Order: sequence, then C-alpha cells, then structure tokens
Amino acid sequence: MPEPIVLFGETYHHPNILWRTGFLAPDPVVYIEIDGDSTLYVSGLEYRRAQKQARVKNVARFDDADFRARLSGDGELAAFGAVIVARLSAAGVEQVRVDPEFPVGLARAIEQGDIVVRSERPLFEDERRAKTDAEAAAIQRTQHAAQAAVDGVRAMLAEADARDGMLYHAGEPLTSGRLIAAIENDLVSRGYGADGTIAAGGSAAAEPHASDSGHLPADKGVIIDVFPLSKQSRYYGDITRTFAVGKPSETWQQMYDAVKAAHHTALSMLRPGANGRDIHRAACQTLYDRGFGASTQGFEREGVPAMIHGTGHGVGLDVHEPPRLSDIDVELRERDVVTIEPGLYSAEEGSVRLEDTVLVTADGYRNLTDYPMEWKP
Amino acid sequence: MPEPIVLFGETYHHPNILWRTGFLAPDPVVYIEIDGDSTLYVSGLEYRRAQKQARVKNVARFDDADFRARLSGDGELAAFGAVIVARLSAAGVEQVRVDPEFPVGLARAIEQGDIVVRSERPLFEDERRAKTDAEAAAIQRTQHAAQAAVDGVRAMLAEADARDGMLYHAGEPLTSGRLIAAIENDLVSRGYGADGTIAAGGSAAAEPHASDSGHLPADKGVIIDVFPLSKQSRYYGDITRTFAVGKPSETWQQMYDAVKAAHHTALSMLRPGANGRDIHRAACQTLYDRGFGASTQGFEREGVPAMIHGTGHGVGLDVHEPPRLSDIDVELRERDVVTIEPGLYSAEEGSVRLEDTVLVTADGYRNLTDYPMEWKP
Repeated sequence: MPEPIVLFGETYHHPNILWRTGFLAPDPVVYIEIDGDSTLYVSGLEYRRAQKQARVKNVARFDDADFRARLSGDGELAAFGAVIVARLSAAGVEQVRVDPEFPVGLARAIEQGDIVVRSERPLFEDERRAKTDAEAAAIQRTQHAAQAAVDGVRAMLAEADARDGMLYHAGEPLTSGRLIAAIENDLVSRGYGADGTIAAGGSAAAEPHASDSGHLPADKGVIIDVFPLSKQSRYYGDITRTFAVGKPSETWQQMYDAVKAAHHTALSMLRPGANGRDIHRAACQTLYDRGFGASTQGFEREGVPAMIHGTGHGVGLDVHEPPRLSDIDVELRERDVVTIEPGLYSAEEGSVRLEDTVLVTADGYRNLTDYPMEWKP
Repeated sequence: MPEPIVLFGETYHHPNILWRTGFLAPDPVVYIEIDGDSTLYVSGLEYRRAQKQARVKNVARFDDADFRARLSGDGELAAFGAVIVARLSAAGVEQVRVDPEFPVGLARAIEQGDIVVRSERPLFEDERRAKTDAEAAAIQRTQHAAQAAVDGVRAMLAEADARDGMLYHAGEPLTSGRLIAAIENDLVSRGYGADGTIAAGGSAAAEPHASDSGHLPADKGVIIDVFPLSKQSRYYGDITRTFAVGKPSETWQQMYDAVKAAHHTALSMLRPGANGRDIHRAACQTLYDRGFGASTQGFEREGVPAMIHGTGHGVGLDVHEPPRLSDIDVELRERDVVTIEPGLYSAEEGSVRLEDTVLVTADGYRNLTDYPMEWKP
C-alpha cells in the first residue's frame, strides 16, 4: 500500500494539487489520498463546482461544526489540521507524506494528532516530469501564443526610429513598458495570462530579471522574455528572443552569434539519459571558446560578457520546475519539457538571451518553439 | 530584543516578503531579520537588482560553495536551510519565528541546526492590516481600474440583444469568455493583472467561484467580479456588480434589492471596534427579513435563495487577507481595508452579488469604490 498523502493550498499556485485533482480553486483546499481513495475538501462555496470538476473519488465540505469552532479560535491552519487529523485517524493512518513546501503550521497540527509527517522529497516530481501527449500539446499551444506576442513587439521594433541613440515608435518614446503592455494585451486577448514579462534593453538588460528598463536605446540588444500560462489548461510556455534596432557593436554581434551557437550545442545534446550538467557545461564551453565567460566553475573569465545563470529548466504547470539544466547532475528523460536559454550579459555592450521550449523524445527532442532566431526585428 | 525572523519564497505569491522588503522576485529568496538587522539572500542573477530595489540593510548571494554543493545533493530546500543555519548560528540565534505557511522541509532543515522554529501565528498580520495612506491610495487606484473594466462590460451588456432567451453582441453570442477577455484586456492595457475574473450568468452563477458559464442568458443576473492587482504596486482591488439584460423575474429583482439593503446594512456598521461577526450577521438578518436565507447558523431557510459565504475579507497585497467578516469574532480597526459583498444564489432565479472595497476610518469608513449599484446595464 502506498503511503497516504496530504496536499494543501489554493491551486492557482500549488500545481501539485491542480495536477492531481484538475480543480482550480482560489482558496485553500485539502486533498487526502489513502490507498487510492482520494478526497478533496473544499469550502461550501466550492462544493457543487468541485463535484463537477474535480478528478477525485470524493468531494467533502470543510463546513462541519468542529471546523467552524476552530476557525474562530486557533486560526485557519488549526481548523484545516483538525479536518485532516479526523480523516486520517478514522482510516487508522499513522504516517503521511507531504511536500517539503507543505506549511509547517499545518504539519505540526497533524503531528499533534499523533501522526508522523514525512516531508523529505517533493511529491509527484517524477510523474509531473513525464508529460503526456495532451500536456505537451497544451505547452505547445501556450508557446505558440507566446511566439505570436513576441512577433507583435518584433513588428513594433521593426517600425521604430532611432533618434539620438533612443528608439521611437509612432512618434512616442518606445519604452519597455509599451512593449510589455503590447505583449500582455495580445496574450490576454487569446486567453493567456502573463506576469513578469521581460522587455529590457541597454545596460538594464544585464540583470536577467530586470523587466522594465524605461526608454529603449538603439544599437543595443532588447531582450524579450515571455512566459505566459493558458487560463484554460494552466500550462506555461517560455520563449526569449533578443532584437537590436540600428547598428549594434561588433562585440554584441559576436555575443549574439555565440549565444546562438551555445543554444545549438545544448539542443543537439538533448536525449533521454543525457546529463543536464554536461549540457550546461557544453553551452558554457561554446561561449568560452568564443572569448566569453560564465559564472560556472571552469568558465570564469574577468572583464568579458558572461553567462550568469543555468542553461534551462523544466516547464509545465510551473514556469520553473524540474529538471534544472545547470552545473548539477540530473538525468534527462523522455517526455521532459525543458527550456534551452543561454545568454551573455554586459552592462556596456548590451545583452543577449535566446530561449526555446522543447520536448525530450526517445531519439532526441522535438522543439515546441517555431520562431526565427534573428536579431534584426 | 524582538525574536529573529526568517521568511522564504518567491515574492509574487508570498506577500509578507514583498511587504517587508519591497523586492519582487520570481524565484525563492530568504529574508533574515535579527534585532533590526535585515539580510535578503538572492541568486547571483538577482543580486544587483536587489541591491538597488530591496528595502533591507544587507543583500547577499546564495552562490557560495556550500550552497552549490548542497543543491546537487539534498535538493534545494536543504541548500536554503544551510544558508539560513549558517547565518543564524553565526549570530548565536537559538530560536526563530517563521510563518505557519513556511515550508515544513525548510523548518526541519533549520531544526537540524539545533535552532528552535516557532510557527504559531502569522507574522506581520497586525502590521499589514494597518494600511498606510500610500497603501490605501494604491488599493484605490487598483479599484478604479477595476471599476473601469466593469464599466466596459456594462456597456457591452447595454448594447446586447436578447434572442430566444440568450444574449448577442455585435451579431455574435455574448459569452462569459468574451466579457472576461474584455475585462482583462482593459486591465492589462492599464498596467494591471487579473486572474480568475468572474463573469457568470444564469444557473452557473449560483456557484460563487464559477468563472465562465458560456453563452449568457437574458432576463437573469450576470455577476461581474473583478479583482486585479497593480503590476507596479502589487496591491489588489475587488469589486462585484450584477447586471441583468431584459426583464428579470420579480423574485430576482427582490433578491437584488435585498442584497443592496444587506450591503447598506454592513457598510453602515463599519467602524473601529466593530465586530466582524456582528456585521456579517446583520447582513444575513437583512436578507432573512426579506424572506431569503443564509448558510450561517440562525439564518438557514429551505428552498429559498441564500447567501452561502461571508460578508467580506481584507484586501491588500493579497486579494483575501485578514480580517474576514464572517460568523467569527474579529475586531475591526482603523486602517483595515475590507470588502463588503453580500450575495444571494439560486440556480433557478439567477444570482446577485454586490461588492465594494472600503477603508475603515476613525469615524466609520471611506469607500474606495465609486461605482453605481444598478442592475440595468
């Protein structure tokens, strides 16, 4: 008999519960699985909807007397704990597994019911890595929506004018904010959501998570990193392209070519059994061979543009999920969906990052991305 | 000396860290506060941005040798735990406070460093309830953006035609999905994000969190519930209006008037020192006096439209935060921001919910919402 499992949380940002139940809930739910018998506890407000939508055996309500009494006294987590302990005790359960991310306050409430709470490893990590055909198709649909949004701002950049080293579009200063708004508007109108979209140019783009850098300069890279989720399927996509309007420096063009080469190197190594660390280090090596550096041990080089992050990460119901492709051993498997996203960063020269999202297949990979890699917009 | 505090998580969905540091991070950060000395640990990728943006004394990097070694072995949480234990031990700390929501896996890693982890009560709950003028203004700005989005779909509903009991707009079936897309497009173009927007009509609206109910019927309530966040300030707003196109039933019109009256009742009781339970029960009483019911004890009534949720909740960096206005004792305070949102639900008659977001002031309240309450669109 597999160990009983308890999951807890709202399901917009707790993908394990969403993955296991298919139920999208803005307020916390409790999921208990004992020997294949699954129960989802929801508020009375969600009860009928959960009965229709949740892929579970039983749907139950929180609103019993004990729950309400505890809500008024020890706070919400104690009340949730009481529900969990009651169910586990009734089934004679002495030990449960939870995610390491499970709330400590709730774990302690369960332990007070004399039930051992094990939290060593994330739940469903292997299962969630193995994307089904339907999941891969959902990611690809999101990726195509992301591409369309990238193409919208590419067109804006293509139409932009440079004056005194800065970009203008339709007579107005072309800012990061305008590009981000254009991307997110386009996504929302297609039924996708986006938060944290990056459109960063000039020296600000040297910080990979700087999203908004104000008025964009000419002759420098503008990094466009779009990672929407489908409001229907809740699966993410992730794409980055870098454009430059005008005449970027020789060095920047070499950076672009080097990143493109590193991207190609990494892609070509994707297959089941490959080590993520080997892929990451090969990408770093490609950059190093062209005179650039990386923060990864063995590729450090002072005073040159450098890659300062890993080469990729898994994508699914989370935008960042296992496996990570970085200087850490991890074996790739068939049906992993990962990004490949080398980059080079320089406050002086500008920056470049190029990212596709791909599916690992039995004989290599299938690129879920289908968008050109050219710096001219 | 106040107890040392540890916070952990990405800050898009962990508002306590965002509230305390002002730093928006898509990947996990660690925040440690010891006797007023605060340190934010971020990845190397975020280091320079955090130095500029975070309201903390010190910014540090995760990327030391020990962190990387542990990342490859025991997983990410153990690596974060090692960073935390190193800092706490160096300062001679023997006991820390964390949120009840703190990851159990990380709490256990800290405990293995012989440090007691206390998790009884949420951190900063009182501090976050007391909205500053700047916070109240940020919520009001979001609320005004939400109102504008509601007004956009009100106009669509006003233009809609009814044919065979269903609504059409510009010759096409008027669906929940079209209204949601219109709302979210409008919000995104103003720099706001929205997820989970509700535009539900007919019998589907009887489930308060049913967001999308397909082709909308005439002569029935359409509930529009919009709760965006500002992508700049990260503060939410929350508004609900209910419209009906055509000729709703007498009963539905009575439901609308009853909910409006309950809304008025609740608003009029808002002041520092008021008990949230009294406010909730007074709203229920108003509905009950007009022949309707509620799921709250003492107001149950079979076979009539009923209110099946609380009367309101706090709004801030979370869309649902303390205090809750429901059948639980809680004392309101000056500077609380709460919603007032009674509703009545019936699969047969249609449903109604009306919601404002308001600030509790020394002598009552200030409504941050400024939008008419009329069912005719």
